[in-house]
Amino acid sequence: MSAHQGPGHLQVVGLTGIGEVHAGDDVAALVVDALHAQRASLSDGDVIAVSSKVVSKAAGLTVADTDRDEVVLRESRRLVAARRTAGGTARIVESAAGPVMAAAGVDASNVEGEVVLTLPHDPDAAARALRTRLHELTGAVVGVVVTDTAGRPWRTGQTDFALGVAGLDPVEDLRGSLDTSGRELSVTARAVVDELAAAADLVKGKAEGVPAALFRGLGDLVLPLDDPGPGARSLVRSGAGDWFRLGHVEAVRAALGAGGVEPPPVTPGTLTERLDRAAEVALAAGPVTGGVVRRQGPALRVEAADDFSLGALTQRVLAALWTEFLVGLADREDGGVLVRTVELPR
Amino acid sequence: MSAHQGPGHLQVVGLTGIGEVHAGDDVAALVVDALHAQRASLSDGDVIAVSSKVVSKAAGLTVADTDRDEVVLRESRRLVAARRTAGGTARIVESAAGPVMAAAGVDASNVEGEVVLTLPHDPDAAARALRTRLHELTGAVVGVVVTDTAGRPWRTGQTDFALGVAGLDPVEDLRGSLDTSGRELSVTARAVVDELAAAADLVKGKAEGVPAALFRGLGDLVLPLDDPGPGARSLVRSGAGDWFRLGHVEAVRAALGAGGVEPPPVTPGTLTERLDRAAEVALAAGPVTGGVVRRQGPALRVEAADDFSLGALTQRVLAALWTEFLVGLADREDGGVLVRTVELPR
Repeated sequence: MSAHQGPGHLQVVGLTGIGEVHAGDDVAALVVDALHAQRASLSDGDVIAVSSKVVSKAAGLTVADTDRDEVVLRESRRLVAARRTAGGTARIVESAAGPVMAAAGVDASNVEGEVVLTLPHDPDAAARALRTRLHELTGAVVGVVVTDTAGRPWRTGQTDFALGVAGLDPVEDLRGSLDTSGRELSVTARAVVDELAAAADLVKGKAEGVPAALFRGLGDLVLPLDDPGPGARSLVRSGAGDWFRLGHVEAVRAALGAGGVEPPPVTPGTLTERLDRAAEVALAAGPVTGGVVRRQGPALRVEAADDFSLGALTQRVLAALWTEFLVGLADREDGGVLVRTVELPR
Repeated sequence: MSAHQGPGHLQVVGLTGIGEVHAGDDVAALVVDALHAQRASLSDGDVIAVSSKVVSKAAGLTVADTDRDEVVLRESRRLVAARRTAGGTARIVESAAGPVMAAAGVDASNVEGEVVLTLPHDPDAAARALRTRLHELTGAVVGVVVTDTAGRPWRTGQTDFALGVAGLDPVEDLRGSLDTSGRELSVTARAVVDELAAAADLVKGKAEGVPAALFRGLGDLVLPLDDPGPGARSLVRSGAGDWFRLGHVEAVRAALGAGGVEPPPVTPGTLTERLDRAAEVALAAGPVTGGVVRRQGPALRVEAADDFSLGALTQRVLAALWTEFLVGLADREDGGVLVRTVELPR
């Protein structure tokens, strides 16, 4: 392999020996010490990736002796999806730190004693402070990525992403640039800081006490010292651009006005359990005069004090059944409605 | 920086000079030639990441002179979410190649002439073939990742991910291992091949004709030659584990039985447009005797031949309004229902 380090030749080095971090620690100094111990030093254009865990510990963002669930709710701005699990409730939320992620990024691993760790509410500010301090200590103009870990909706396993960024453009915008055939590129904007976070995780690992990584060879990616860039917060998608504002179950419940019903379990369970949940959702969606929804064999029987209410309640039952992968077939009989069901292909 | 290359010291090298790839080309030979031109050669434990674009071109997966939309639908197994755009319809689908992604991964950039490029339907088989051929040519036992590019639901910008994998475990499972405090790790499984794909993108780039990357320093990640591992297909999440089977709009429409209505536009538009769409969805959700939903000023007027139908149709209107970020307030009047609306906070 060529020893030449030009564009297209990237080195990623895990920083060992940082050890346990405590509230008040100077993370930049710990990084510089770790570099020195590895006979390395920072140069202009380098990028340092640091796990949020270290940043949170240094900032003293531990919550002691308390209910983790409570902390998750406090660190959440909005519920996106939830399921009941053996151990409690698993929630995907819009976190106070910015991104949509499981448990608002509240972390009970790698923390000593009975405490949980929360994320900084302004991770970009944390990255900027780290960048400034690294410059003070070394004179080098570097980029900083504060990384965190999250799952993905349609893929198993977690990857690291950029929670906070300073001195780097979060996105390398290729819109309008031409591809090798002279055509305008349809792939428009690379989230380069998320790719840096993922790459850093390859050397950082989780259990090995390597909470930081050095990148060398990224060329002109690092911005001038007086330009922190727009930060990782700019990567958070919201509003009309968010096509997945809620999970599919949560969306239907919200549309019916039954958002307050207990989350469904991770595994849907028996037909009986699924029918009972659908009945509960239908009835929770606002009061219905004389409204009754109850199981009758493998079907649901719907009753109400008047036909208008019966029609509304039946429609709710049909929509709620869809969230259980069931198609309802409604027939009026004996002053009520019998809704039989057919399994939806999954 | 230390010249020592141990665990925690990763090199990523972009392979230049591969040039335009044509149907029938031997991708492995192109990779080996590119390595030689950079005075490098493959060793046991190396990992090669190759853009799917190159694999698809070599496999002749081009479709000439046709409607891109048609190709996207053909390469789709299931629609997940869609929006109308200025240029047509943007679709997120479960692709024939496996992952949920925009446009089923059909690519019109970096392709010569009036053709589009599709993904291999078995990307893991493509990765395995590449691994076997690289071994034939060099004797080295390496890992292979076929990479592709996708957006993410809650973050702007695209990142690369592993579409096909051979000779690597897609997930590094940390379940049950202890963290540095002796506690069981709550972060369970790292999607290491997706992180490799993301890291490769940092040196590959999109417009620069660098469609492959070499990783050195990954240690014991590469599996023995006779063990391809479970492939990237094993990372695709589906069934009850998929909490985002449909977008929030698509979920509500599907629950109402109105999945066939034209996708909403990327930008919701005026109140009038939003009310008209809600009315269309409510009426599309199965026949209602004498069913009418029409705008009346800033509200919707609902009518039906009987009270049961009126109740059902009104409930549909309320749910459909939710997909337009509107809360409906229904009042019975003059034999019908007037549904006034209030904006939902976004």
